[in-house]
Amino acid sequence: MKGIVLLSGGMDSLVTTAIANKECNELFFLHLNYGQKTEVREMKSFDQIKEFYEYKDVLVVDVSYLQQIGGSSLTDDKMEVEDHCKSSGVPSSYVPFRNAHLVTIATSWAEVIKADRIYIGAVEEDSSGYPDCRESFYKALEKAIDLGTKDETNIKLRTPIIHKRKAEIIKLGAELGAPLEYSWSCYKNNEIACGKCDSCVLRINAFKEAGLKDPIPYEIKIDW
Amino acid sequence: MKGIVLLSGGMDSLVTTAIANKECNELFFLHLNYGQKTEVREMKSFDQIKEFYEYKDVLVVDVSYLQQIGGSSLTDDKMEVEDHCKSSGVPSSYVPFRNAHLVTIATSWAEVIKADRIYIGAVEEDSSGYPDCRESFYKALEKAIDLGTKDETNIKLRTPIIHKRKAEIIKLGAELGAPLEYSWSCYKNNEIACGKCDSCVLRINAFKEAGLKDPIPYEIKIDW
Repeated sequence: MKGIVLLSGGMDSLVTTAIANKECNELFFLHLNYGQKTEVREMKSFDQIKEFYEYKDVLVVDVSYLQQIGGSSLTDDKMEVEDHCKSSGVPSSYVPFRNAHLVTIATSWAEVIKADRIYIGAVEEDSSGYPDCRESFYKALEKAIDLGTKDETNIKLRTPIIHKRKAEIIKLGAELGAPLEYSWSCYKNNEIACGKCDSCVLRINAFKEAGLKDPIPYEIKIDW
Repeated sequence: MKGIVLLSGGMDSLVTTAIANKECNELFFLHLNYGQKTEVREMKSFDQIKEFYEYKDVLVVDVSYLQQIGGSSLTDDKMEVEDHCKSSGVPSSYVPFRNAHLVTIATSWAEVIKADRIYIGAVEEDSSGYPDCRESFYKALEKAIDLGTKDETNIKLRTPIIHKRKAEIIKLGAELGAPLEYSWSCYKNNEIACGKCDSCVLRINAFKEAGLKDPIPYEIKIDW
């Protein structure tokens, strides 16, 4: 079984990698740089994680056109990454339709290398409320992949943690021996996590709920 | 009505532009460069066509990762663009899942600028047999777009020439006053069309069937 894993370097993609590593005998890693504010730090996590697992090949692609398109605080210097709050609606960090780009690039690659599966660590309920994290979206996209590729191409889209809560994901990662210390989630900083952005707050709360201490450093004091 | 048109500079995208121009009051043009062998020539056609029509904005994006991925004679220097023959199957010029990249980029842009429609000049039956030109694929992709974008985002995917034959498309373009002389189809050459590749043969036959003479130059003599 050949699997392509979309590996950003965050917790969800790390644990998804650990799952793919159990299910596949050949792993391929895909990473996207798109001018996100933590691009360099994500790349470091990507490198550490890919070295931890055995891999067959990697593809790192520049999709900086996402910056040309804009519309997200993750890619637009004029927009501030907002602190976490419990407001409803889609947060400003949403990069319009980003996960579709990830899967589309993975699909082209999968068709060339004849991979069987694409793994993406999307999380539906217990996440920031991004519309491109819904399971229904991936079901529709898998159908589009089936119809839009050669008849002999047969690619399954796997979202193994989509219905898990963040605390469960961390527990599962620990059980599978995933190197949690290599993952990075902060949207703002590159060396010491801010502890305040959407992504940090979700991560910290999840570690607490899982009864574990996060091994990465934070610039605010956290009561574990 | 705001419409984004995927404008490669070929005949199909030109005639699709002419249709979009009738249906929308604001036109936006998207063009992709991906290291295809006729990139410079396509860009020239794009520029000529966009100047002919009034447009609100353009987006030209570099997706040269399609070259990293390879698998197509259009992007891989080691693969030859094959001459047209009536063999079945998907031709070597197929760029794996390329049209999904086009639509995905257009969708991100559409979500930011609040466009209502994306136009793509895909042709199903009377074309080279690319799997990403099937109407069923676009129906599935439109559903994925609906599910993977914000609830308030409402983007329709329009494929107005998908069931037309090439000769009908040319006739329709002529009727709508489209500048046929600006379009480029040849996969091999940049100045004078080869007249022999898949794309040229389809175009020449279609002009003949439409009872029209193609206004672009060919390096072989053609009996119009």
